[in-house]
Amino acid sequence: MPSYKAPVDDTLFLLNDVLNIQRFGNLEGFADASPDLTGQILGEAGKLCEEVLAPLNASGDANGCKRHPDGSVTTPAGFKSAFEAYAGGGWIGLSAPPEYGGQGLPYSLTMVMSEFASSANMAFAMYPGLTQGALAALLTHGSPEQKKLYAPAMIEGRWTGTMNLTEPQCGTDLGLLTTKAVPRADGAYAITGQKIFISAGEHDLSENIIHLVLARLEGAPAGVKGISLFIVPKVLVNADGSLGQRNGVSCGSIEEKMGIHGNATCVMNYDGATGYLIGEANRGLNAMFVMMNEARLGVAMQGLAQSEVAYQNALAYAKERLQGRALTGPKYPEKKADPIIVHPDVRRMLLEIKAFNEAARALALSAALDSDIAHRSGDPAARQAADDRLGLLTPVLKGMLTDVGFENAVKAQQVFGGHGYIREWGMEQFVRDARIAMIYEGANGIQALDLVGRKLPREGGRAIMAFFKEGAELLGGHSANEAMKPFVAPAQAALADLQKASMWLMQNAMAKPDNAGAASYDYMHLLGRVALALMWVKIAAAALEKQVREPETAALMEAKLTTARFYMERMLPETSLRLARIVSGADTMMSLAPEMF
Amino acid sequence: MPSYKAPVDDTLFLLNDVLNIQRFGNLEGFADASPDLTGQILGEAGKLCEEVLAPLNASGDANGCKRHPDGSVTTPAGFKSAFEAYAGGGWIGLSAPPEYGGQGLPYSLTMVMSEFASSANMAFAMYPGLTQGALAALLTHGSPEQKKLYAPAMIEGRWTGTMNLTEPQCGTDLGLLTTKAVPRADGAYAITGQKIFISAGEHDLSENIIHLVLARLEGAPAGVKGISLFIVPKVLVNADGSLGQRNGVSCGSIEEKMGIHGNATCVMNYDGATGYLIGEANRGLNAMFVMMNEARLGVAMQGLAQSEVAYQNALAYAKERLQGRALTGPKYPEKKADPIIVHPDVRRMLLEIKAFNEAARALALSAALDSDIAHRSGDPAARQAADDRLGLLTPVLKGMLTDVGFENAVKAQQVFGGHGYIREWGMEQFVRDARIAMIYEGANGIQALDLVGRKLPREGGRAIMAFFKEGAELLGGHSANEAMKPFVAPAQAALADLQKASMWLMQNAMAKPDNAGAASYDYMHLLGRVALALMWVKIAAAALEKQVREPETAALMEAKLTTARFYMERMLPETSLRLARIVSGADTMMSLAPEMF
Repeated sequence: MPSYKAPVDDTLFLLNDVLNIQRFGNLEGFADASPDLTGQILGEAGKLCEEVLAPLNASGDANGCKRHPDGSVTTPAGFKSAFEAYAGGGWIGLSAPPEYGGQGLPYSLTMVMSEFASSANMAFAMYPGLTQGALAALLTHGSPEQKKLYAPAMIEGRWTGTMNLTEPQCGTDLGLLTTKAVPRADGAYAITGQKIFISAGEHDLSENIIHLVLARLEGAPAGVKGISLFIVPKVLVNADGSLGQRNGVSCGSIEEKMGIHGNATCVMNYDGATGYLIGEANRGLNAMFVMMNEARLGVAMQGLAQSEVAYQNALAYAKERLQGRALTGPKYPEKKADPIIVHPDVRRMLLEIKAFNEAARALALSAALDSDIAHRSGDPAARQAADDRLGLLTPVLKGMLTDVGFENAVKAQQVFGGHGYIREWGMEQFVRDARIAMIYEGANGIQALDLVGRKLPREGGRAIMAFFKEGAELLGGHSANEAMKPFVAPAQAALADLQKASMWLMQNAMAKPDNAGAASYDYMHLLGRVALALMWVKIAAAALEKQVREPETAALMEAKLTTARFYMERMLPETSLRLARIVSGADTMMSLAPEMF
Repeated sequence: MPSYKAPVDDTLFLLNDVLNIQRFGNLEGFADASPDLTGQILGEAGKLCEEVLAPLNASGDANGCKRHPDGSVTTPAGFKSAFEAYAGGGWIGLSAPPEYGGQGLPYSLTMVMSEFASSANMAFAMYPGLTQGALAALLTHGSPEQKKLYAPAMIEGRWTGTMNLTEPQCGTDLGLLTTKAVPRADGAYAITGQKIFISAGEHDLSENIIHLVLARLEGAPAGVKGISLFIVPKVLVNADGSLGQRNGVSCGSIEEKMGIHGNATCVMNYDGATGYLIGEANRGLNAMFVMMNEARLGVAMQGLAQSEVAYQNALAYAKERLQGRALTGPKYPEKKADPIIVHPDVRRMLLEIKAFNEAARALALSAALDSDIAHRSGDPAARQAADDRLGLLTPVLKGMLTDVGFENAVKAQQVFGGHGYIREWGMEQFVRDARIAMIYEGANGIQALDLVGRKLPREGGRAIMAFFKEGAELLGGHSANEAMKPFVAPAQAALADLQKASMWLMQNAMAKPDNAGAASYDYMHLLGRVALALMWVKIAAAALEKQVREPETAALMEAKLTTARFYMERMLPETSLRLARIVSGADTMMSLAPEMF
């Protein structure tokens, strides 16, 4: 049975020492996020995840969800009471507005809880996670009446939420969607069509499910400019918030899939179901993107989360499993063999994961803080800069954290040898669960296109220019410090690779869009690796400072510095490879006729 | 439902045009392997795999093997008659000696069949595959009586074989094994102990199962030098070859695992079972290594095989699935959307797989030919050179083909978007099945250590020196040809990276063995990428020549050249990254205390 310990201390170090969350005391909700209170909140979050959610992870995978002949769906044993504990603890609305019953705390803390909960039980964490996404869209685009009617019950967890985009003939290309919305005399709409891959589409955790559904109004333009967003409750809600009749929406089947068996992935059939337009007609994609962006960050956390829990278990195994002797002679001669952590190649695997996780967590929290700034700062320039950074980094976080998170789960499984392939050790579940994160909320290739096609060129490249400037300033600020040299110099070289790649794109992608497409995936990973390097520079600087200020942390801070060095020496050289691939262009790959593949 | 078409034409192109198998007409069994006959044999092999084995792959995964209370195990429906067809076709003994009923054909053809069968149904292919491995050990180390008693029935498929190494406390470190062998008055031994992870350990496909079991003789030295190998038949065999009493060996349970559900992975209990020493006492590991080396090549083929079948299905999906429009404008304006193969990033994924598969197949066949030469040539120098190449490349093939094969299965799954995660499409099974190949027959980290610790230094580096010399000669021979420039120049640079890495190892690994351990994994992949580049050089040269000689093949040969260019431009630059990692050394990774991870 795998185990899980929430990385509360590392998270607090990042929030307090590296990202200096105290700087933002003037933002709404941040005054309450003192180091002490934050520590308490994260301690409680960790406890819930370790004690309630993690023990249900393996059994949830083994037993899965069951659909009954009447279309109802039962979640795995224990999920219902775990959801009550989760909702009852106020975790769904942790950073939701107090006027609807939320706690108004920083969104950054919600992101921390996303990581912890996904490590403990990813399939479970999707139920509150999707509710939070639906809530975000509702709060941004809903009318005051809609917010008042739906938000409080969702924040309480009495009702949950879903997002309904995909149809059999369209996933990425939503312009092809055919679900219809026909206006009715009462101002509502009759929604008809079939949606697939609807996570948490039907279950027994809540009294009601609020589906947000993309559909096409009669007579709307073809393509993505004719799509509207509708609220379609599973059970209709009376004006006073009480539940009325069952709506014309039902779960037709649940999918058999590779993993996340504890989450019901549903085919949802809408048969003239009552729906309410949310936001403007034909601007549904716009409204859905609020949800998508939040969901993409949540999915990024799933990648990190599986990497983290897989790492913890691989590390424990590497310390316990006795096999062979160190290459330099026995390290534990009193034992029959040395623990496998003495072997360089086992350390390589562990350090590749560790060096990724700690910087990825820093980067994700930094993005979450940007989201807080973008939504809560009174300074328009600060809001814009934060929004630019967030926009640029959202696809990178989603693509890189899920790609590498999966690779890391595989690597951690490898540490176990044959036992890693056996169910009872739990490692193979982490791999199967992690795999979906590379696919949903926009497959990672789509994230790469979003980055290169939309986020880079936006406003004349304002976001990437600011990224370069901030990176150069950060490195410049540490360049005189001898102790920082092992971190600053490689980061500088990697930043230069990114600049070359960006320049190449500017010069070659306009004339030939295929060059952008061909470069996009490597560019996403290149930018991501540079962003992690900059995070390691920040972490190293904080560690050097802290080990002087608080000598009792010296060993821990030294470990941070060693891990930073490992990242720079072993992992960051990847940027040159990415650059070489990017500048090779699209000609060769585009020249092969489809029938010659 | 996924489909599979055996790559007969590509294999014949490699055997006939690239590797010139006709050169070896003087080797035993090769005279029968004319292009025509080889074509017929591979055609039959393909047909069996496509029509009999592939249709049982998904159902075998879904239904798995079942152990009954009496310890017997039932394989999935259809496996028994498929095994009869496989054995009846003579495929198990395709390259086994005619004196025991084999067909004596080149081992290279057995390797081809390994690929086809593993693509079609990996779990199934392991039953004959393990039998072939056991047979190889028996034929090399068994006494004449043992060979006569066991080999014919194994070649016929009436009996199958297994290899029993792993115990709960030891996998990699066989020195720790505790299974005991006590001599009996009749010259046999009583074998007692528990073995785990025994593939095909118990099943209903054959009348008998011949277990090859590593055990420790009473009073034998500790460690690996006190291990002997025993034949332990499930049912005892009378002197006339008829079956006698049931032996004291039984399947205690079968493992629940991530994949290859159609193959029974057994815990085997030996309770004073009758065993017969094979080969010399205390030299069991030596005998087992014959089997291991053959098995490692077989596992390498599993990696390639999953990559190939996953590619075929991803390609078909990419041509059919309509979603979005090409970045350069609609390519199929009459359709609602373009097939996704128009998108550069989809082509990137497909070409990364294709460019790997075709060169990996060439490299594997080249190694198989070396095995044929090493066993069958009358020229001692040729035998030695072939054996050196095979020894050097066996860990590389096992490590690289299974690592990249798995990555490619994941990549092919990604082409399917959400559908890739759903069982019925079959892509996720390829991923789950492919995963084990990185682990068993020596986890890939162990392959890397075998390469760097044993194969490189052996005989003063004779094998790697010959590899450099042959590589330089190959590239030198094509350097004057302008049409070969796009292939020769990058391969030259990559070969130089490998030489630098080898030099670094020579200078740094003796004094500090951890440097070898820390470099090993990257070195294995570096050598592998260079070996693939040299294969692409050979393929490109053959393609340039063939498109002139047989103009009707021009388009196909042009596709080979394009794929070769893609490999050189996009994939081979990886060698610099591997070199950078290698020369960063072991200091950083070894400096972290276990408790600071």
